[in-house]
Amino acid sequence: MTGPRYTDIVRALPASVPFVGPEVRERETGKAFAARLGANENVFGPSPKAISAMQEAVGDIWKYSDATSHDLRHALAVHHNVDAENIVVGEGIDGLLGYLVRLLIEPGDSVVTSDGAYPTFNYHVAGFGGELHKVPYKDDHEDPAALLTKAKEVGAKLVYLANPDNPMGTWHDGSKIRAALDDLPHGCLLMLDEAYIEFAPDGTAPEIPIDDPRVIRMRTFSKAYGIAGARIAYAMGAPDLIQSFDKIRNHFGVNRVAQAGALAALQDEDWLQQTIHRMAEARDRIAQIAAANGLHSLPSAANFVAVDCGRDGDFARAVLNELIARDLFVRMPGVAPLNRCIRISCGRPQDLDLLESALPQALAAARA
Amino acid sequence: MTGPRYTDIVRALPASVPFVGPEVRERETGKAFAARLGANENVFGPSPKAISAMQEAVGDIWKYSDATSHDLRHALAVHHNVDAENIVVGEGIDGLLGYLVRLLIEPGDSVVTSDGAYPTFNYHVAGFGGELHKVPYKDDHEDPAALLTKAKEVGAKLVYLANPDNPMGTWHDGSKIRAALDDLPHGCLLMLDEAYIEFAPDGTAPEIPIDDPRVIRMRTFSKAYGIAGARIAYAMGAPDLIQSFDKIRNHFGVNRVAQAGALAALQDEDWLQQTIHRMAEARDRIAQIAAANGLHSLPSAANFVAVDCGRDGDFARAVLNELIARDLFVRMPGVAPLNRCIRISCGRPQDLDLLESALPQALAAARA
Repeated sequence: MTGPRYTDIVRALPASVPFVGPEVRERETGKAFAARLGANENVFGPSPKAISAMQEAVGDIWKYSDATSHDLRHALAVHHNVDAENIVVGEGIDGLLGYLVRLLIEPGDSVVTSDGAYPTFNYHVAGFGGELHKVPYKDDHEDPAALLTKAKEVGAKLVYLANPDNPMGTWHDGSKIRAALDDLPHGCLLMLDEAYIEFAPDGTAPEIPIDDPRVIRMRTFSKAYGIAGARIAYAMGAPDLIQSFDKIRNHFGVNRVAQAGALAALQDEDWLQQTIHRMAEARDRIAQIAAANGLHSLPSAANFVAVDCGRDGDFARAVLNELIARDLFVRMPGVAPLNRCIRISCGRPQDLDLLESALPQALAAARA
Repeated sequence: MTGPRYTDIVRALPASVPFVGPEVRERETGKAFAARLGANENVFGPSPKAISAMQEAVGDIWKYSDATSHDLRHALAVHHNVDAENIVVGEGIDGLLGYLVRLLIEPGDSVVTSDGAYPTFNYHVAGFGGELHKVPYKDDHEDPAALLTKAKEVGAKLVYLANPDNPMGTWHDGSKIRAALDDLPHGCLLMLDEAYIEFAPDGTAPEIPIDDPRVIRMRTFSKAYGIAGARIAYAMGAPDLIQSFDKIRNHFGVNRVAQAGALAALQDEDWLQQTIHRMAEARDRIAQIAAANGLHSLPSAANFVAVDCGRDGDFARAVLNELIARDLFVRMPGVAPLNRCIRISCGRPQDLDLLESALPQALAAARA
């Protein structure tokens, strides 16, 4: 009996799974992490109004979700002062990135990103046979000028830029992003990942007309709105591009409870502001803890802080492993020179108390 | 300013959206349907234990979901007496169908289905540039022999067969499906859609060794388990095929609440049996209502009944529209000769009371 005949692309893809969550280690060791500071989740949780809305929505879960996410899209349109036709809702930014790559990239097409930026974007580019070109970070920032120069050089169809950046937490002023658009090659789309934008200083989001066909922006309810497990995010852009998603997406991919939760979360501006304040406090505390241990930490406009361990990637990896051994879930960048850092998500005071006690021990063990 | 450069496949795809839910009409008319009998939902809802589990899971929704759906997959493995490596969980059968087509189908590859079978499968085949070949139903049943003959003729990589069938509700004994495998061409995969299998008579699910590389089976929590809005389903098959999904899927596509709800629903066998009993009663009642109006209805092994309106597709469409005008949400098959029928999902007694009063009026209006 013969098996199925896979596509050429699929046969060439690695079988390894790049998505290893904290639950894997928790199952291996049989105990839960004491602090969950590795996935840039929002430990403060969503608005209590979103919790209530989701619990109520569970009662109607026998019904399919609205394939158009009508109510949420219209609320987002009001929120951003755009039309509902400028917005598509999907299964997290991860899901929307997959659809976007599928819309544009055929085998051999060029795509540009930064070396060390969001791996899931790279995963999708590989998954559709795209050719990925990477430019280095510059002073721990993604480098818009270098990205666009590379895009022109390789005739890229798509360029990825996160602002604020993950995993470093650095950011550019929106005016700089907007100005860079002048150098975007014809027929190249800028994918602007704004997953962390709510945490960033005013002016970080560039003012770009919503109908500008050169840009698509993605935002999520996983970070500032605190419902990562709901898997819901959205993309904004010109109507033609946004409607193209309808040609290929899983129209019934988004959970009904998620739709209700996102809508309620969006409408609780007070809670959002409290969350942003708490995250800023947590960022400061992480920086203080780092400094108390003689470590420099990078300024961050996100809900995490990259802490420079002061040596190379092997040393940072050792520190990371020592923290994990002490039941703190943290992660680190994958490539040099970013990988001299570990990335610590903002935690509640009690989470950061644990960090405060564990970090000196982890550093000592790593140095030993 | 130029827009993005889409792939050849995307440019050729229609811009029309084939997924129009009942909410669209509800928004147009400003009132809700009085009975929701069009999407083969489970109006009886999920197990109360699943409701509780989901409401509890909402409290942890700030955490990402487990990308491996570990607990659910292992419970399913026990339930089906297979290994967890034989199971992948995804964003509904719709989502899993999309991934499956992507794994196998390159532009120009042949795929076979029945003319009038599940449109979302066809949508995904078109979405990856596959060439779809259709064979007619035979006596209102999908025709396994004709499907496999056609598969051999066109060198198909993939054949779709739903058992029980949607939209007709008819079914084949599992032994017939199993015997048909002998005629499956080498290198052709049988996609067996068992979305409605829990409602079917014993013996409808074929006994096929789980490691048989010629078959993949898909099942869902949307129908018998009653959580359509959660968007969660699974595929079962040989480990190599199942693990291939990990090369391309959105690893964080499934909602955390959905994972908890599916697990609890799976474990409430009593509720499942009650649901199956209620659906059988509702099927009988729909058939009685049809008969009282002089209409024949097809035997069904699903949670809906195809009612033969006795004339052509235009007449059935007129009956359908008259029911919709009376605030009953129902649907109908899309192609002749199936489209002489309307498809009525099983409802609660009060839903079917509404059907009982509306159907004579709708028939009279359609005949006028």
